[in-house]
Amino acid sequence: MTDTLDATAVYTDRHGTVHSLPDAEAEAAVRADDRAHVFHSWSAQALIDPIPVAAGQGSTFWDYQGNEFLDFSSQLVYLNLGHQHPDLVKAIQTQAGRLATIQPSMASDVRGELARRIAEVAPGDLDKVFFTNGGADANENAIRMARAFTGKRKVLAAYRSYHGNTTTAITATGDPRRWTNEPGDGSVQHFFGPYAYRSPFHSSSPVEEAQRALEHLEQTIVLEGASTIAAIILETVVGTNGVLVPPPGYLQGVRDLCDKYGILYIADEVMVGFGRIGEWFAVNRFGVTPDLITFAKGVNSGYVPLGGVVISQKIAAHFDTVAFQGGLTYSGHPLACAAGVATFEVFERDGILERVRDLGERVVAPRMKELADKHPSVGDVRGVGLFWAIELVRNRETKEQLVPFNASGAAAAPMNAVIAECKSRGVYPFTHFNRLQFAPPLIVTEEELHRGLDAYDRALDVADTYVH
Amino acid sequence: MTDTLDATAVYTDRHGTVHSLPDAEAEAAVRADDRAHVFHSWSAQALIDPIPVAAGQGSTFWDYQGNEFLDFSSQLVYLNLGHQHPDLVKAIQTQAGRLATIQPSMASDVRGELARRIAEVAPGDLDKVFFTNGGADANENAIRMARAFTGKRKVLAAYRSYHGNTTTAITATGDPRRWTNEPGDGSVQHFFGPYAYRSPFHSSSPVEEAQRALEHLEQTIVLEGASTIAAIILETVVGTNGVLVPPPGYLQGVRDLCDKYGILYIADEVMVGFGRIGEWFAVNRFGVTPDLITFAKGVNSGYVPLGGVVISQKIAAHFDTVAFQGGLTYSGHPLACAAGVATFEVFERDGILERVRDLGERVVAPRMKELADKHPSVGDVRGVGLFWAIELVRNRETKEQLVPFNASGAAAAPMNAVIAECKSRGVYPFTHFNRLQFAPPLIVTEEELHRGLDAYDRALDVADTYVH
Ligand SMILES: Cc1ncc(COP(=O)(O)O)c(C=O)c1O
Ligand SMILES: Cc1ncc(COP(=O)(O)O)c(C=O)c1O
Repeated sequence: MTDTLDATAVYTDRHGTVHSLPDAEAEAAVRADDRAHVFHSWSAQALIDPIPVAAGQGSTFWDYQGNEFLDFSSQLVYLNLGHQHPDLVKAIQTQAGRLATIQPSMASDVRGELARRIAEVAPGDLDKVFFTNGGADANENAIRMARAFTGKRKVLAAYRSYHGNTTTAITATGDPRRWTNEPGDGSVQHFFGPYAYRSPFHSSSPVEEAQRALEHLEQTIVLEGASTIAAIILETVVGTNGVLVPPPGYLQGVRDLCDKYGILYIADEVMVGFGRIGEWFAVNRFGVTPDLITFAKGVNSGYVPLGGVVISQKIAAHFDTVAFQGGLTYSGHPLACAAGVATFEVFERDGILERVRDLGERVVAPRMKELADKHPSVGDVRGVGLFWAIELVRNRETKEQLVPFNASGAAAAPMNAVIAECKSRGVYPFTHFNRLQFAPPLIVTEEELHRGLDAYDRALDVADTYVH
Repeated sequence: MTDTLDATAVYTDRHGTVHSLPDAEAEAAVRADDRAHVFHSWSAQALIDPIPVAAGQGSTFWDYQGNEFLDFSSQLVYLNLGHQHPDLVKAIQTQAGRLATIQPSMASDVRGELARRIAEVAPGDLDKVFFTNGGADANENAIRMARAFTGKRKVLAAYRSYHGNTTTAITATGDPRRWTNEPGDGSVQHFFGPYAYRSPFHSSSPVEEAQRALEHLEQTIVLEGASTIAAIILETVVGTNGVLVPPPGYLQGVRDLCDKYGILYIADEVMVGFGRIGEWFAVNRFGVTPDLITFAKGVNSGYVPLGGVVISQKIAAHFDTVAFQGGLTYSGHPLACAAGVATFEVFERDGILERVRDLGERVVAPRMKELADKHPSVGDVRGVGLFWAIELVRNRETKEQLVPFNASGAAAAPMNAVIAECKSRGVYPFTHFNRLQFAPPLIVTEEELHRGLDAYDRALDVADTYVH
């Protein structure tokens, strides 16, 4: 494990000089450049106020006022090994000093080594890796491979999902971020996945939920026409859209339907791969083998942009003599791959996967249950490993949401109050719609877990005030 | 200028240990991992033999056999400051040691500084930057902004262009890489750009070519319906598809047509921005101001994946209160931005832009003219700065191409012979279809330029043998 660091309120500027915090002048300069020149994602630019960040270490980051935040969001759920992990930093520095970049059509030692290590931990015969820069392009290329391999075009994707922001990835996405980007890829159709707490299938148990969700999926396949469907793309555990852990039998059922109808199964593990639920690949926990797995984020904790597709032998073999029609300038970037190889070394040496399973079961699960028992605003808690969601309601009987689906402005005020309470207690939460989610770095300490969950406890007091 | 380095046949492994070359054992290991586990772009996997690269320095790289290659392709035309530039390496190492990553919704000093510096050199009032990981996602997001801003969907793009591999970017692409990815984005229409050597408009001078190309574009706008067209996307100097330098008046004419019809002008400068033709942005040379400019590659020489969109004030203002519906996990990655800030410092300190213009005019242009005069296989040479194409023909009168459009297999043999000749002389060329192109790192020395162009001279002897 990395050491717990002394929370020193200092930061290093880009010339390597150390300054103490607070530093109002530096903050003003960062804010001025940012507001004048940086255009931010998914936002109305005049309505945001980005926190200028001065430093980060482990599970913590600091703003220029010296405020310390325990990051229960792992940034955008990618900082699996926390800020400034010494092994990752060293790997990047060493690789930068020896060969920062080489193009995709040449062979690179670290690229090959990372591909081999990924193949070693991937399920079944998935043993070739096409590298990309992030999650969206990983999904774009997985879908492209599925289409070329099957000679079919349609893709089935789930509602309540996120697959990235480029055209095919955003069309596959099943949340409001798709809406204004429509029409996009003309060959995507959405279906309902399992969601036991608010069952779209009127089921009364997780097992029944799985069965009915599979029946729904099969009907969708039949009505869309199996002969038109190249692939089903599915987050193994749905991430941003609710930490929806698949009920027993569901993923195996998806695999079986794919086999029955000649459809490829693409598992999107951009958020849940590389340790988030205590497995290299989340499908390993459920004992299923997809045809293609996409990844990004945790593969190198986002220290350098990297994503990719892990490919089964039968699909890879198709492209032995038929050219694959996709590529990108930075595919398999050596700097990114070096950080990926270091990630494998750290995970193995420090037993990260075992640690996540242990903390999840021994520390987090009981505390989540406590929160659920104690707070009437908690409709449901669910999760696995270091990945949880607390679904907030105004009424447990009716399950009326604390805030409506896709709420903004005044309608979102109750959630904003919950978020503000977390932040005032030094915890940066991961939230979405009516859910307080939980995804700390995998190197989080027990003390930090308890401290952060204490803050979540107080924030739920705020949520409770809206219960009727 | 960086020092010319002693061509020491050594490499450093990923643990920092120095080895001498050749190293057959290391080569075998790299090749084994690569062939077993790395899936390469745009290729039939069993028909390629990627060169294992051991080291790079300046304009040169070495394989594990100790062979030295002068890189006239700048990898994929991104390595503008060459391999292992000490300032870029140091910037990455320092940033890795202080704060490797922070998410897009927060404010980062280096992200803001790079955005400001880009805004300072961008034309007109383009002064906000949305960062991406590369060129494809830059174009996807520029098109998304144009659609949201105009409320229209259609995009006009040129034949003989490349815009990236994600769905909207590949649909905008006007070369064969689009073909197997169709149908893609349903709202893209292609038109013909100027190409004086093989005029699609039967023109007899560059000025006439510009006029007729504009007439064709205007007819296309009228027939497609200006009320349906959000944007025209155009490489300022067409890159991979032929180093097509726009004839006098063309780009200004495009700007005028866009204004006349209420269409946005997106300049794709992924390949030609940041110095390739001796300008920060290539449009600066032509005195026009697009509404959106996309960039990647040269912004940090691809040391860390980075791209982006530079946005005019009127478009940015639209998103002050309306949320922009796009984003990606690694937007504005600090490690990538630190290398971008260092790029600005090096360009300014070492007068890179002036150097490119000087070398282009004083050294390269005369030698290109010599090659054209001497070799009957040369149909046309064209270029600017350190960006040139030599178009190869079997007959200067008929302009029959040395190899057909999109040739592969046996049909491509003459070009393969030209390429092999370059490589046997230690020069790694940039080629596409029937063209020997030229895009060395901008820090290339005069000695290297002459040495490499001597090799091109010999390779043209090979091309000459096919002339009839
Ligand atoms: C499940 C999933 N897929 C894909 C993506 C897109 O990844 P990126 O933002 O790197 O393109 C995300 C990002 O959050 C994700 O959570
Ligand atoms: C003009 C142009 N646009 C876009 C791209 C796509 O960039 P990337 O490969 O980084 O996605 C390229 C790549 O060569 C390019 O040359």
